[in-house]
Amino acid sequence: MNNFIFENSTKVYFGKGCVKEYLACKLKNYQTIMLAYGGGSIKRNGIYDEIMTILEKENKDVIEFGGIPSNPTYAKVLEGARLAKENGADIILGVGGGSVMDCCKAISLAAVYDGDVWTDFWQRPGCISFEPLPLGVIVTVSGTGSEMNGGAVITNEETKIKTGRDYPACNPNFALMDPEYTFSVPKLQTASGGFDTLSHIMEIYFSEPDENNVSDDIAEAVMKSVIRNLPAALKDPADYTARSNLMWAATMAENRVIKLGKKTDFEAHQIEHQLGAYTDCNHGCGLAVIQPTYYRHIYKDGLKKFVRFAANVWKIPPRGKTDEELALAGINALEDFIKEIGLPKTLRELGIEDKGILPEIAQSCNISPGSYRQLTHEEILEILKESY
Amino acid sequence: MNNFIFENSTKVYFGKGCVKEYLACKLKNYQTIMLAYGGGSIKRNGIYDEIMTILEKENKDVIEFGGIPSNPTYAKVLEGARLAKENGADIILGVGGGSVMDCCKAISLAAVYDGDVWTDFWQRPGCISFEPLPLGVIVTVSGTGSEMNGGAVITNEETKIKTGRDYPACNPNFALMDPEYTFSVPKLQTASGGFDTLSHIMEIYFSEPDENNVSDDIAEAVMKSVIRNLPAALKDPADYTARSNLMWAATMAENRVIKLGKKTDFEAHQIEHQLGAYTDCNHGCGLAVIQPTYYRHIYKDGLKKFVRFAANVWKIPPRGKTDEELALAGINALEDFIKEIGLPKTLRELGIEDKGILPEIAQSCNISPGSYRQLTHEEILEILKESY
Repeated sequence: MNNFIFENSTKVYFGKGCVKEYLACKLKNYQTIMLAYGGGSIKRNGIYDEIMTILEKENKDVIEFGGIPSNPTYAKVLEGARLAKENGADIILGVGGGSVMDCCKAISLAAVYDGDVWTDFWQRPGCISFEPLPLGVIVTVSGTGSEMNGGAVITNEETKIKTGRDYPACNPNFALMDPEYTFSVPKLQTASGGFDTLSHIMEIYFSEPDENNVSDDIAEAVMKSVIRNLPAALKDPADYTARSNLMWAATMAENRVIKLGKKTDFEAHQIEHQLGAYTDCNHGCGLAVIQPTYYRHIYKDGLKKFVRFAANVWKIPPRGKTDEELALAGINALEDFIKEIGLPKTLRELGIEDKGILPEIAQSCNISPGSYRQLTHEEILEILKESY
Repeated sequence: MNNFIFENSTKVYFGKGCVKEYLACKLKNYQTIMLAYGGGSIKRNGIYDEIMTILEKENKDVIEFGGIPSNPTYAKVLEGARLAKENGADIILGVGGGSVMDCCKAISLAAVYDGDVWTDFWQRPGCISFEPLPLGVIVTVSGTGSEMNGGAVITNEETKIKTGRDYPACNPNFALMDPEYTFSVPKLQTASGGFDTLSHIMEIYFSEPDENNVSDDIAEAVMKSVIRNLPAALKDPADYTARSNLMWAATMAENRVIKLGKKTDFEAHQIEHQLGAYTDCNHGCGLAVIQPTYYRHIYKDGLKKFVRFAANVWKIPPRGKTDEELALAGINALEDFIKEIGLPKTLRELGIEDKGILPEIAQSCNISPGSYRQLTHEEILEILKESY
């Protein structure tokens, strides 16, 4: 294994009824709560009422900050930070999925920082030498794993840059995760969130070192769990076993554990981020379109791992196949799975009507050092065109 | 998955050269360091000198506390606590394996607590509402996973009780883990430490719920890593890949991750602890003797999981076998592995010469609620006799 440093400060409360059981206790040292959420689904499914009942019973002062969009924007971060400052929020309570949690992390910095957080912490990596505003989260959509890391992906609409950073200081203080809260998540979002989890694991798995490695072993275990439980949750949205496994798998994919001793790359995410910045497409759907094509471009450079992926994750019998055939069979199995869970397979299905936008998107992509091979902007354009 | 709460406050620095790179930095806020270690192997293999060079360069005041035995005793804990108090230690730096780390955790309580820590925190579970003396550890023998939890197993020689408790407040503040530090660990201790890791995972894996579960998937992944890497490390003690995987697998087995959403039981450990309390036998060796016999006693009550263990961990083809035959084949494979890594298979090989002591040992065992079935003292005696 490569050298690593590991820490994770988030305290997780997981399971049925955890919000009712622990929220009041977690907020006991705070009076003014900024309640942040997304498009309002929590008002329809009863989660908002459940939380408000607790906050009212505890006589908290509540500042509401709703309407956080998917692909949260820097403008929204600044709006939230202003609100938190003006009202003297003691803590942010983010209720939602990755977009809400990411936006809240950026707000937790912007609410106490005098400079421009985009420039100092997202445009380039920065050093956080101050205490962010405390943050707690209640997860209602699983997939991004944002609940147990310091990562936040923010879109700057002006410069059309969507980028993520992971600052341990931004880890939520606590995360309340009730799998029943995800029962009402619509099918497409369930599939997209589950695929986002799978995508995170693949981005980490397909990178060096390739020698035997506990982290890769764990990565395979968590992938297999997602592949088993995602179709089950799509079939029966109230399947507690499936929902609880998906929820915890999402966290395990992004709480740094499976990255330990490994390089990471996230090139498919880099490409999808720019797709999102230009088209506001759904994140998991964008990844589903890009990832198989991307892997067909790089699999020869990481052949051994792609063979292992086919054999261990998809259980494809190796007999009679060359390594290349086996590797490709694994990527095909991934594509079949994407089809099975009902996600789009092309950029056109994703709703991108103008192919002419692709060169600009390709050119804007950040190029990471490369898991098995560093891409060029030209090759990213090829990948986008092949995915169209 | 069952409900759970997860937190882990230890910051881990893992890899070649980590002590040289990070120790000075981790100690920068402390002046008086209590350097705790075991029987002196660190003086023979150069680790002591490497650490002392760093401490001297940083002008630290060092209090040495050596001679911590395997199966650390409460008397030794009190001795360490007295030394720490008398010299005003600011931090304990434990250098060694599980015995040293466990002893240091108990000292970190006893050095600042007015009451009797055995009575209040080990004899019965207690509530730690004070700050223990800070603790950092440098791992030189992997296996117990003590570096990333609050668990400490202490032996009270007077009452002949060896028992463990896990208090999050006792988590080391930091753990420095250089796999090269384990190159000089002798074969028997390497095997026994690796088996201890495997034993921890099995104790957790063989318990409900049995429905599909990310934690069980991860448990299988980590077991397979140990089974692959332990023989490699025995063959070539300087195999960095094997040593680093074993070291991190040991931590992953006991940093609470694979316990999440699962009941835990640790009945084999309960039995071994009393074997240890009465005979001072090696912990991993004691487990190796007991565990297969214990599993032959309970496998019918957790048949589905034992079948899965045979198929997924030991890759035993199910064709032509009944579930019972498959489950037993898995336990046989475990026994073959114990033989392969050179650990004892009987209490006699373990050096226990007097069979007459077994009833008293059996009677003294703590009986846990049971993973698949709660044992009785009579059945523990049967297990001990069959293991003789």
